[in-house]
Amino acid sequence: MRGLWLEDRSLRLRDDIPVPEPPPGEVRIRVLRAGVCNTDLELVRGYYPFTGVPGHEFVGRVERAPGAEGWEGRRVVGEINAACRTCPTCAAGRPTHCETRTVLGIVGRHGAFAESLTLPVGNLHAVPGSLPDEVAVFTEPLAAALEIQQQVDVAAGQRIVVVGDGKLGNLVSQTLALAGGDVLVIGRYPAKLELLAGRGVSTGFADALPERMADLVVECTGDPDGFALARRAVRPRGTIVLKSTYRGDATVSFSALVVDEITLVGSRCGPFAPALDLLESGRVDVTGLVHARYPLDQALTAFDHAARPGVLKVLVDCGG
Amino acid sequence: MRGLWLEDRSLRLRDDIPVPEPPPGEVRIRVLRAGVCNTDLELVRGYYPFTGVPGHEFVGRVERAPGAEGWEGRRVVGEINAACRTCPTCAAGRPTHCETRTVLGIVGRHGAFAESLTLPVGNLHAVPGSLPDEVAVFTEPLAAALEIQQQVDVAAGQRIVVVGDGKLGNLVSQTLALAGGDVLVIGRYPAKLELLAGRGVSTGFADALPERMADLVVECTGDPDGFALARRAVRPRGTIVLKSTYRGDATVSFSALVVDEITLVGSRCGPFAPALDLLESGRVDVTGLVHARYPLDQALTAFDHAARPGVLKVLVDCGG
Repeated sequence: MRGLWLEDRSLRLRDDIPVPEPPPGEVRIRVLRAGVCNTDLELVRGYYPFTGVPGHEFVGRVERAPGAEGWEGRRVVGEINAACRTCPTCAAGRPTHCETRTVLGIVGRHGAFAESLTLPVGNLHAVPGSLPDEVAVFTEPLAAALEIQQQVDVAAGQRIVVVGDGKLGNLVSQTLALAGGDVLVIGRYPAKLELLAGRGVSTGFADALPERMADLVVECTGDPDGFALARRAVRPRGTIVLKSTYRGDATVSFSALVVDEITLVGSRCGPFAPALDLLESGRVDVTGLVHARYPLDQALTAFDHAARPGVLKVLVDCGG
Repeated sequence: MRGLWLEDRSLRLRDDIPVPEPPPGEVRIRVLRAGVCNTDLELVRGYYPFTGVPGHEFVGRVERAPGAEGWEGRRVVGEINAACRTCPTCAAGRPTHCETRTVLGIVGRHGAFAESLTLPVGNLHAVPGSLPDEVAVFTEPLAAALEIQQQVDVAAGQRIVVVGDGKLGNLVSQTLALAGGDVLVIGRYPAKLELLAGRGVSTGFADALPERMADLVVECTGDPDGFALARRAVRPRGTIVLKSTYRGDATVSFSALVVDEITLVGSRCGPFAPALDLLESGRVDVTGLVHARYPLDQALTAFDHAARPGVLKVLVDCGG
């Protein structure tokens, strides 16, 4: 089959990738749409040494589901962590942290920028019929945005600063505003901020950052410099949620974190069911987030496009 | 009066420090004993540009308390943050983070390595008569250890690793074991670890560190390398409490914190009342923690002694 292939930090289109045969407990899915995430771009930059088909944001249709034929023909999205379900970490209720997990298009498992992929049947979520593909494809990043509320209490009127007006920053801001937060998004791009201004949040550039005032700051820039802004924004005893993954280390004064008693919370994948609900009800709006669509055989161009400054979501039509 | 004086990273003994006159709302205290803390050593190394009398761990006797004469003659310990009590941070119930606070012997207020000091009357806690000076002087660092439980839930059986067998690591370990934690202290000094082995905690060297297993890790080494050990010990979705203040920045992979969804919590000063209770009841034992005592005119030697590897608490008798 056709698909993108990442190897030694180099991305190429291949036509000779074997069609995956679902192992026991898994299903094969024809990919309809896949979205380019910053993590995909960081993988190409060497953030993590992955070889294979990248891509973890997708909507598709189940093609083959041995032993779970009820899923065949259904349109689905899929959680990206495939856990063993038996190790102590899984037994403790943290399957997304299973020490032997594979992760779709990121760790040990081919991903979504191809005609087909496989996932465990337990990872699937049926997509409501009313939800267009180009909306359903946002389920995974929206779930990641919702993970914040699994980790941190968000109260009505809480002063929240979201640093970053990109794809993730947009979804994070919308979900925190829905939870009652008094949200200010700090960004760089007037057009991106304008998208959010209609969603009940305040927006501004870095010079509008109120210093040492925010109860909660979410760092979504995908850039080490974002942390410096987050650190300036947070009040003593406040919380900074880290959402970005990127290559390289950051430099931070731990002593200053101690003196100000700041809490940092790393935050990754989140719950799919409430994400689908929010998309279906329209309470989270992804209109305007899609900046471009390319067919699978132009997926390399799609990646280049997604890497340009100021670009939001780029989708790839995988032909499923 | 006599006292230690820190200026331009240089410490000297002075005999010409003016006896402090308590401003309105404050009292003057004759210092009985003061303890050398790692923060004092870090101040000399330039952690923070303080000029004046260092020292923030003390027990003393109130000498002059205008308008609060009931305190005169009483033996006291004192909270070290002097807050304005009116700013938004104070009004929000976070006086230890008051943006215009002074901090005894650390920020804008002369400290305890002198014959006298002044503090607001609201900062005082009477010392029970049964508590010897050399035990009461541990109230401040013990309160700092207890701050952890103000910030993080500690449950019975929780797997806790304390990195650092020093003064603070000892007190942190004892308090977390009392809270029901299954505590392992990782240290470098057999004698220090032995002190703790009698207090219901397990002990070991770095090679005994169980990797990715601890629910909660407390970093008490006062050294950037301690974080690397803490990071290795903590399980996915676990918490690392940072207790050390030292000069310089640390390098950390934020992406790895995101992937493992680790929480970091900066932790500083804590509640004095429960600390006094624990010392009075003997549930926290500081026997063996005092490695040396010096009179005030040998306070420079006391600092040198405290800076030697393997040394725990060094006390200064300030003559009060």
